[in-house]
Amino acid sequence: MTADGLPVRVPAEGLPARVRIYEVGARDGLQNEKGTVPTEVKAEFVRRLAGAGLPAVEATSFVHPKWVPQLADAEQLFPMVSDLPVELPVLVPNERGLNRALALGARTVALFASATESFARANLNRTVAESLAMFEPVAARAKAEGLRVRAYVSMVFGDPWEGPVAVPQAVDVCRALLGMGADELSLGDTIGVATAGHVAAVLTALKEAGVATGAIGVHFHDTYGQALANTLVALQHGVTTVDASAGGLGGCPYAKSATGNLATEDLVWMLQGLGIETGVDLGRLTATSVWMAEQLGRPSPSRTVRALSHQEQ
Amino acid sequence: MTADGLPVRVPAEGLPARVRIYEVGARDGLQNEKGTVPTEVKAEFVRRLAGAGLPAVEATSFVHPKWVPQLADAEQLFPMVSDLPVELPVLVPNERGLNRALALGARTVALFASATESFARANLNRTVAESLAMFEPVAARAKAEGLRVRAYVSMVFGDPWEGPVAVPQAVDVCRALLGMGADELSLGDTIGVATAGHVAAVLTALKEAGVATGAIGVHFHDTYGQALANTLVALQHGVTTVDASAGGLGGCPYAKSATGNLATEDLVWMLQGLGIETGVDLGRLTATSVWMAEQLGRPSPSRTVRALSHQEQ
Repeated sequence: MTADGLPVRVPAEGLPARVRIYEVGARDGLQNEKGTVPTEVKAEFVRRLAGAGLPAVEATSFVHPKWVPQLADAEQLFPMVSDLPVELPVLVPNERGLNRALALGARTVALFASATESFARANLNRTVAESLAMFEPVAARAKAEGLRVRAYVSMVFGDPWEGPVAVPQAVDVCRALLGMGADELSLGDTIGVATAGHVAAVLTALKEAGVATGAIGVHFHDTYGQALANTLVALQHGVTTVDASAGGLGGCPYAKSATGNLATEDLVWMLQGLGIETGVDLGRLTATSVWMAEQLGRPSPSRTVRALSHQEQ
Repeated sequence: MTADGLPVRVPAEGLPARVRIYEVGARDGLQNEKGTVPTEVKAEFVRRLAGAGLPAVEATSFVHPKWVPQLADAEQLFPMVSDLPVELPVLVPNERGLNRALALGARTVALFASATESFARANLNRTVAESLAMFEPVAARAKAEGLRVRAYVSMVFGDPWEGPVAVPQAVDVCRALLGMGADELSLGDTIGVATAGHVAAVLTALKEAGVATGAIGVHFHDTYGQALANTLVALQHGVTTVDASAGGLGGCPYAKSATGNLATEDLVWMLQGLGIETGVDLGRLTATSVWMAEQLGRPSPSRTVRALSHQEQ
């Protein structure tokens, strides 16, 4: 570590020069919090994340409050942050959600699909085919309105009910989403079971299916400690969009053992060490996660946050 | 994850078929425990680790009890486990330590060197050159007695006082240790600051210096969450010996922020997923770490241990 508290930069061959970190803490993180986080605190969190240099900060979700009461204040929150000069995607589950997002001036929306029938049933109460049919007009309308469309694909690698997911099955869902106009995929290892070879296999299969690497984002969970190793494999395959959650907040409330989003700070530490540009100020980001941990009343699970904040004491 | 609780196997190109996990929990882990662990518990821990299929289980240390009181029972412990059919290395700091190890019939000894002057001074109260001069007769005598000699090199990547460590400086210490007869190096990222490119640079430099890859082990700490990604890079460079600590026990008492050995279970999860043979039974290993955590009265920091033991509840 250098005197400024950052890792020494030693680039490696075959990696991208720049990575876009897609920050999910304010949505994916906070939707998993049991208590209610005040809207003002959420807005401050989004502001601080943008201030730390994150280029895309997913702000909230327009899912019905019955399903995600933690984000029931989306209408109040979004206008409080929409002036920020960063991409502020919002999750929309269906056409009604898209209408709410459009009414507030959102410029990027994210759909939330599943690679498996079991999770589609549990999370969307539909078959995979039915859910894709539901997304199609949403994506078409969003594109017609000039919005950028991201498509999460959950359970790409494994599913708590079905076990391992066949690579072609995941690829088919990805292709369907791109076919309906999605600009970007986020390949989700929702229960954190993926390992390095599986990640390589999915990325290779997507490439062979004609999917542009620039349209692929990865979303790894640290349930079994694999998130950063899997991310490195994705970078080695040319991926330049990586989802992460400040301080390691979050998981998925509908999937067993789906704890532990990749912590943005652990990712930034690796990328800075590799000399890969992110635009993120690690000190400001860590301070943000320490502040948010204080709001939530429990320490951050990010190892980098713990190491850096301990050193500051 | 498959029905037997293991990750699905998807091999990746360019990785070794087999990895030897060098288990350090009973020595590196327990020497950092504040309380006293009864000798019988330590012996049972070593037995269970061997029973889980780990091929090399570092059993204890013959450092003077004044410096490491936690392992003051080395003379009592070693005979309680020396019948186990696995490699049982012991740490020896100097010739006196070697004599104690030889008297008990140890077959592998480990020296503990430093790549930096500051840590050599703090840990060994010597310069790097003086410490190497001290190790030389120890290594020679051990080799003459037919022992296998491992040499830890601490602070290979960074040092809490000096910051980043120049690659040639680390390589010089490695070459000196091999030159005096060490069979195997363990490249230590003692404060956990290494990132993927730095690991690649050190391994490339060692190869260029003529060091056989088979003589290189890696020892990463998870202080900043980088241990498993760094391990993957080492495997991609042909390394087949990886140090890890069951349940993530341990660190280094003399180095600031040196918490968090790579957890053996997190490593095994990755290797099993990659189809790399280790001989380790992940279920038995996890049960061992859960049992040891109960003895120590606190949960394991290993993400895999937490995920698997939670699922078993």
